[in-house]
Amino acid sequence: MRVTTIHGPHDIRLEDRPDPVIQEPTDAVLRVLAACVCGSDLWSYRGENPIRPGQPIGHEAIGVVEAVGPEVRSFGPGDFVVVPFCTCDNTCVHCRHGMQSACEHGGIVSGGQADLVRVSQAEGSMVRVGDRGEQPEASMLPALLALSDVMATGWHACVAAGVGPGSTVAVVGDGAVGLCGVLAARQLGAERIVAMSRHEPRQRIAEKFGATDVVPERGEQGVARVLDLTDGVGTDATLECVGTGAAMDTAFEIARPGSTVGFVGVPHGVELPVRTMFSKNVGLAGGVAPVRRYLPELLGLVLDGSIDPSPVFDLRLPLSEVAEGYRAMDERRAIKVYLDPEEA
Amino acid sequence: MRVTTIHGPHDIRLEDRPDPVIQEPTDAVLRVLAACVCGSDLWSYRGENPIRPGQPIGHEAIGVVEAVGPEVRSFGPGDFVVVPFCTCDNTCVHCRHGMQSACEHGGIVSGGQADLVRVSQAEGSMVRVGDRGEQPEASMLPALLALSDVMATGWHACVAAGVGPGSTVAVVGDGAVGLCGVLAARQLGAERIVAMSRHEPRQRIAEKFGATDVVPERGEQGVARVLDLTDGVGTDATLECVGTGAAMDTAFEIARPGSTVGFVGVPHGVELPVRTMFSKNVGLAGGVAPVRRYLPELLGLVLDGSIDPSPVFDLRLPLSEVAEGYRAMDERRAIKVYLDPEEA
Repeated sequence: MRVTTIHGPHDIRLEDRPDPVIQEPTDAVLRVLAACVCGSDLWSYRGENPIRPGQPIGHEAIGVVEAVGPEVRSFGPGDFVVVPFCTCDNTCVHCRHGMQSACEHGGIVSGGQADLVRVSQAEGSMVRVGDRGEQPEASMLPALLALSDVMATGWHACVAAGVGPGSTVAVVGDGAVGLCGVLAARQLGAERIVAMSRHEPRQRIAEKFGATDVVPERGEQGVARVLDLTDGVGTDATLECVGTGAAMDTAFEIARPGSTVGFVGVPHGVELPVRTMFSKNVGLAGGVAPVRRYLPELLGLVLDGSIDPSPVFDLRLPLSEVAEGYRAMDERRAIKVYLDPEEA
Repeated sequence: MRVTTIHGPHDIRLEDRPDPVIQEPTDAVLRVLAACVCGSDLWSYRGENPIRPGQPIGHEAIGVVEAVGPEVRSFGPGDFVVVPFCTCDNTCVHCRHGMQSACEHGGIVSGGQADLVRVSQAEGSMVRVGDRGEQPEASMLPALLALSDVMATGWHACVAAGVGPGSTVAVVGDGAVGLCGVLAARQLGAERIVAMSRHEPRQRIAEKFGATDVVPERGEQGVARVLDLTDGVGTDATLECVGTGAAMDTAFEIARPGSTVGFVGVPHGVELPVRTMFSKNVGLAGGVAPVRRYLPELLGLVLDGSIDPSPVFDLRLPLSEVAEGYRAMDERRAIKVYLDPEEA
């Protein structure tokens, strides 16, 4: 089977490797029907995260179960499932507290940009779409794929920041996660949603997702604009969906005293402004999204049409062109790349 | 009248100055019946905060109203009041959000270790004890004085950290605020309260306040002990009541994934462990306590005997010996010094 591997900065290859097999009784093997490239994959792509040359890459996938280990009882061959990018047994003490991304037996899906992928802790992690053996419409695949990471991550940012009915929310970052944060905020009842974005195609998606205001300025000017929009008060909830120091600083400057910044961008070079946080009483919450916690609810919202995160995929490529997918995202020619293993 | 001033590191003086007068229509002038020295005053005392030589010091006071400005309608001469260390109009947008310490018209009480003190925003800030003109029993003064800062600050740490019925809480720091944090946690229904303290007199107060476990170890050993006490899971809520990097690191290491560290120690040299916060989903919340928000509730709890924070005052001195009070706290001979302006 084919699997995407990384060999160094800007060196993505699609290689033939042996088919994955059941290694643990809690494993499943999935035929991938759709995968994608994550903003966080770009940290490795750009040489900013350490890698092992030749390691498989890609942690987002949906598909059909091929095989399961003996301890996987709720799924069988032919079931269509969404796989959270972070796996979990969904029974340990951290899972019971709703923090499945800290599961004692969890890990990160590896090698998802492939024909087949092994999923560990399959019983606790996977969520089936429909009845056993039922297959969703092909048109639903992009929205379902978004549930494996970005939609759940944007949702987590909202939950961490305390978004609720009537909230004024600002979203720092217009990547797929930030855009999903806008969509989540609307679904959670936010009244005003300020998308900070200076890229016109992303602004359009933000507006489609429910942004009431778009602020193209960055840095001090962006802060001034958001404060102006909120009569100088600041935002009730702020989503930091980038992971850089500049984005974090902006988030804390626009946040209303007593509010919370929800952060889901993997922090790189971030120094938190602890004195500002203290004097303003602005908290920080978030981290690796406990996707499994939100997945049943989000799946219901996708299936009943309440949310449709699929517009974040603005470039569709066959898996064979995965290297071009990385290039397109690295050069910001694409927001998020959808990979189809079955397309020629 | 006499007022405590600071002239430089370790240079505290009690000086004669003109009586304070009403300067703004929102002011009140108070005859101080009890004041105290705050752990945060020690930052200035030790030369770690900038000061203006000769500036009045002290922000905690209770006493009787002497005079009020024309916009102060709910209080009059003879009323016994508690003054929050941070004043507020209690009507601005931040006050309405419960963040009175970020009030648009607020400030910090200055010159509270004195015979008389001017209180700005008196209408919004002060809370009367009993009916107009009524005086509490002298024995109640220490508990009431604690409400002006430390008890409300310990309470804020609990609220920020999300302490609730059944919580397992750890308190990092055994100063007066940390001890009040223990008392607040018990009152808020915590089931298990781990006090991190290696000073025997403070351990005793922590136990009196409701600590179920005392951990004298610090650093890695302290972390290991707390994790051991929680079966390796970590604490549901963690109070950081010191303000140093070491205390903050400990707090994040013992916190359960998905929980929140409530911080109320003014941060000095703290670098927040943002990667740990992200990977563990441990949030940070807190800051300058919005005392006025909690004061009516806390006053009720003191008056009906539910809580008695007075044991944090383990040294009582006449105001004339204020310099010795600072020395005693600096040398950790006292937890918190109670100053009586009327005692000879």
